[in-house]
Amino acid sequence: MSESLGRNRNGVPVIQFVALSGTGKTTFLEKMVAELKGRGLRVGVYKHDGHDFEIDRPGKDSWRMTQAGADVTVLSSSERAVIMENRPVAPEELADRVSDVDLLLVEGYKTGPWRKIAMRRKASGKDWAIPPESCIAVVTDGPGPDGVPRFGFDDVKAAADFLQKEIDGP
Amino acid sequence: MSESLGRNRNGVPVIQFVALSGTGKTTFLEKMVAELKGRGLRVGVYKHDGHDFEIDRPGKDSWRMTQAGADVTVLSSSERAVIMENRPVAPEELADRVSDVDLLLVEGYKTGPWRKIAMRRKASGKDWAIPPESCIAVVTDGPGPDGVPRFGFDDVKAAADFLQKEIDGP
Repeated sequence: MSESLGRNRNGVPVIQFVALSGTGKTTFLEKMVAELKGRGLRVGVYKHDGHDFEIDRPGKDSWRMTQAGADVTVLSSSERAVIMENRPVAPEELADRVSDVDLLLVEGYKTGPWRKIAMRRKASGKDWAIPPESCIAVVTDGPGPDGVPRFGFDDVKAAADFLQKEIDGP
Repeated sequence: MSESLGRNRNGVPVIQFVALSGTGKTTFLEKMVAELKGRGLRVGVYKHDGHDFEIDRPGKDSWRMTQAGADVTVLSSSERAVIMENRPVAPEELADRVSDVDLLLVEGYKTGPWRKIAMRRKASGKDWAIPPESCIAVVTDGPGPDGVPRFGFDDVKAAADFLQKEIDGP
């Protein structure tokens, strides 16, 4: 653990959630984001998707620019903004671009240099996606390794307390 | 003109296209992006929209994170990536985040510190959106100010030649 990175280039604490599909990561993270936001924290979420996706809507002006070949398409209003990189960007580079949040939660890939929380749903019959003893905590409905903080899928508040402490370290 | 910025924080040349609605900016820029890409250049396009928009698709995992309150939602695949800022970001700050392109074309707002190209469709009966004599060039089907390079709406190749020269200066 000592070699994992605590923060991205902008000083944002980064924690990865790692689990096999069907574990309930998204639902857990959805609750976690709401919990952390309720505590007044600014939260970033980074999801890596094994499948390709199209985010923009066909026919929109920004979509037309992307179709015309733009490598980067930026869209903004007075309320929000989107930067579309229409080309591969390394996950670490992407995480490094996030700024002005108190915490970045990463989901969807097993590698990566950051502190990790492994998740496993025992009822699914699947194993851990990564060795849980290498993690700063685990979320599971079953047993976990000795000495590693363990939270249930419904223990969002306790897990949020843990994350809040992690924000201040390492 | 001498006080306008030539490049963003990452050294990317930035040029704004400024016109009233109905001028044909998007169609012109669509052709320009394709033309510049055909010349082997990496192109970024930044469109500011006076209206709010929703970019993500309801039900997607990333959309759920945004709905849960995430301030920043990042989504990536091996092919592309999207950084969604679910909060206001200043246009200059957004433009400054674009990197690794040879040119950034900005559209959709009249202010901003960068070199500008004014567009006007005389046939629409509308005036210029900004004083054309303050611009590095104009695109129009009518007259333009003396001493300012002028291109027609179909002169995409000639306008691309002009932009290529601008990339090297100032």
